[in-house]
Amino acid sequence: MMEAEGMDGAIVLSPENIYYLTGSPFVQGSIGKILHLGRDGRDSLIVNDLDYEEAMDKSAGVEVVKTDFLEKPSERLKKIAGRALGYEEGFVSVSLHETLSKGFQLKPLKGAIEKLREVKEGEEVARIRDSQRATERALERAMKVFKVGMSELEIAAEIEYNMRREGAEVYAFENLIASGRRGVYPHGIPSTKRVGGGEPVVLDIGVKVSGYCSDMTRTIFFGAPAEEAVSAYVAVREAQEAALGAAKPGMKGKELDGVARSVLQGKGYGAYFSHGLGHGVGIAVHEGPSAGPRGEDPLVPGNVVTVEPGVYLPKRFGIRLEDMILIREGGIENLTSFTKDMLVF
Amino acid sequence: MMEAEGMDGAIVLSPENIYYLTGSPFVQGSIGKILHLGRDGRDSLIVNDLDYEEAMDKSAGVEVVKTDFLEKPSERLKKIAGRALGYEEGFVSVSLHETLSKGFQLKPLKGAIEKLREVKEGEEVARIRDSQRATERALERAMKVFKVGMSELEIAAEIEYNMRREGAEVYAFENLIASGRRGVYPHGIPSTKRVGGGEPVVLDIGVKVSGYCSDMTRTIFFGAPAEEAVSAYVAVREAQEAALGAAKPGMKGKELDGVARSVLQGKGYGAYFSHGLGHGVGIAVHEGPSAGPRGEDPLVPGNVVTVEPGVYLPKRFGIRLEDMILIREGGIENLTSFTKDMLVF
Repeated sequence: MMEAEGMDGAIVLSPENIYYLTGSPFVQGSIGKILHLGRDGRDSLIVNDLDYEEAMDKSAGVEVVKTDFLEKPSERLKKIAGRALGYEEGFVSVSLHETLSKGFQLKPLKGAIEKLREVKEGEEVARIRDSQRATERALERAMKVFKVGMSELEIAAEIEYNMRREGAEVYAFENLIASGRRGVYPHGIPSTKRVGGGEPVVLDIGVKVSGYCSDMTRTIFFGAPAEEAVSAYVAVREAQEAALGAAKPGMKGKELDGVARSVLQGKGYGAYFSHGLGHGVGIAVHEGPSAGPRGEDPLVPGNVVTVEPGVYLPKRFGIRLEDMILIREGGIENLTSFTKDMLVF
Repeated sequence: MMEAEGMDGAIVLSPENIYYLTGSPFVQGSIGKILHLGRDGRDSLIVNDLDYEEAMDKSAGVEVVKTDFLEKPSERLKKIAGRALGYEEGFVSVSLHETLSKGFQLKPLKGAIEKLREVKEGEEVARIRDSQRATERALERAMKVFKVGMSELEIAAEIEYNMRREGAEVYAFENLIASGRRGVYPHGIPSTKRVGGGEPVVLDIGVKVSGYCSDMTRTIFFGAPAEEAVSAYVAVREAQEAALGAAKPGMKGKELDGVARSVLQGKGYGAYFSHGLGHGVGIAVHEGPSAGPRGEDPLVPGNVVTVEPGVYLPKRFGIRLEDMILIREGGIENLTSFTKDMLVF
């Protein structure tokens, strides 16, 4: 691509892309490092004093370059790089682009690195498996103390305590514990609300192990559920099973979404499934390819995507089930093994 | 500003800025909502189906507008907004800018909203206090089971379990538990490493309560520390006390940084304090104003900033102490009350 586009090299600023290419770790939301990919194959990771030891210990296949104190990484970049550089136009802000444009001629990388990340290699799948296993074991252990009257925060405390003990180095996202009518919130972070009376509780949970995310949703019940919740649960489960049965390489993401959506539409829940069916999972918990209604790319072996239909009845409750699948030659493998039977506590 | 710059209105896309202006919550890393600020004072929050219920329940002072399924928020924006719009040039990516420029004439907001966020009102300070109190109580409770031989992950499990029980709705950042030589890592997320032999353990921890962050670092010891660790601890504590004693309104962030830095330089640790002294804390755990060596803005009443000197000896250990202070008329208030005595487990 560098040759075709007349680039002397490329700069990578997204922490997830830097981790993917070098193994250099990041705190969520952090920036500051610059990875320079040379057209000659020589790559340099420019870091400040603070990041130097960790980058030296953990980065592979790259020369680690330390800036002087107060020297900006972009100043050091000028000493290393040519003039025409690829850059991540979907990540770099307008301000940063303006600053970098003073020293370089920037050309869009057009999502090339993100596209590579969509196809997982064996080692990456192994890490996602480890991550998912830690999540499932944690939930199994935590459930032993679930009972009517607990608060959402107490449920979160039990799950995350066991996630740490199962090796979670960090959470893959803000774990969501949303009961009753809070189950319709996309941002259903746990609250002091106590749970009971047959309420469905949406648990959307995941961790990172060795830098890779897992992502699973189960909806469980505190007390015997009412019939309308059981009906919605059964519909969501059928929609998910239909999608899991249909998924295969070559299918577009939006086609897979359509399989689950048509099941829910047939049961009268079409208007209450208000998000896409799924998304890719890897170093980021939300990455490509999309398995939503705008997913135009065909799924290919090595993709890891979620399959997560849901039904959200305003002012009532939400139900969602989410598995992660690996697209393989000729079919799929479900990376999630946690039960989908209705669990009542 | 809209009048002076000839804007018909402004669009706000950063989740933190939207939360600040409306109360509409967000998952870290999420985007998708558009807040339109009308020059006539009429504001609209454009959300998709999924976000609608939560936005209706939690947003204030703003009309919530729901898009049709698959309609992009930017399409709906065209029906509401004028042509010349302010936008967050430090947040919006080059790609997104290109898309929005097809329908609008975009003008930089120059960090105006972030600047407002730097000065906390009483209710905001109250939330930061609640958040900090939850963190301190959680650490106090967790410490009761600390003992030599625990792993960093077990330490994290105990702290976070108690954070949830103290009402943490989410963690403010990836809690760092970094022992021994791992203490020099800025990304010192907990590992399976067991702790003992007098090792210092850096605990950099914080939660969110009612949408506002807390941020505290303590360095504790598992077993009796060696003399070089004690010396470094004493130096860091002195540097912090000097900065806490000197902080006042009107002082530039870099001047405050200089107070702590000169103490550490005087003790021969100057080369080992490889980051800025502090940063603002609020809805985001890292926001303005800076109290680092590039902090040119004078501190003003209502700023909440961290004071966190550290010493990092490569291949050996790290020591850091971090308090959050509120700048007030005529002085400061330390929002952190957790002991800085050397704690040995």
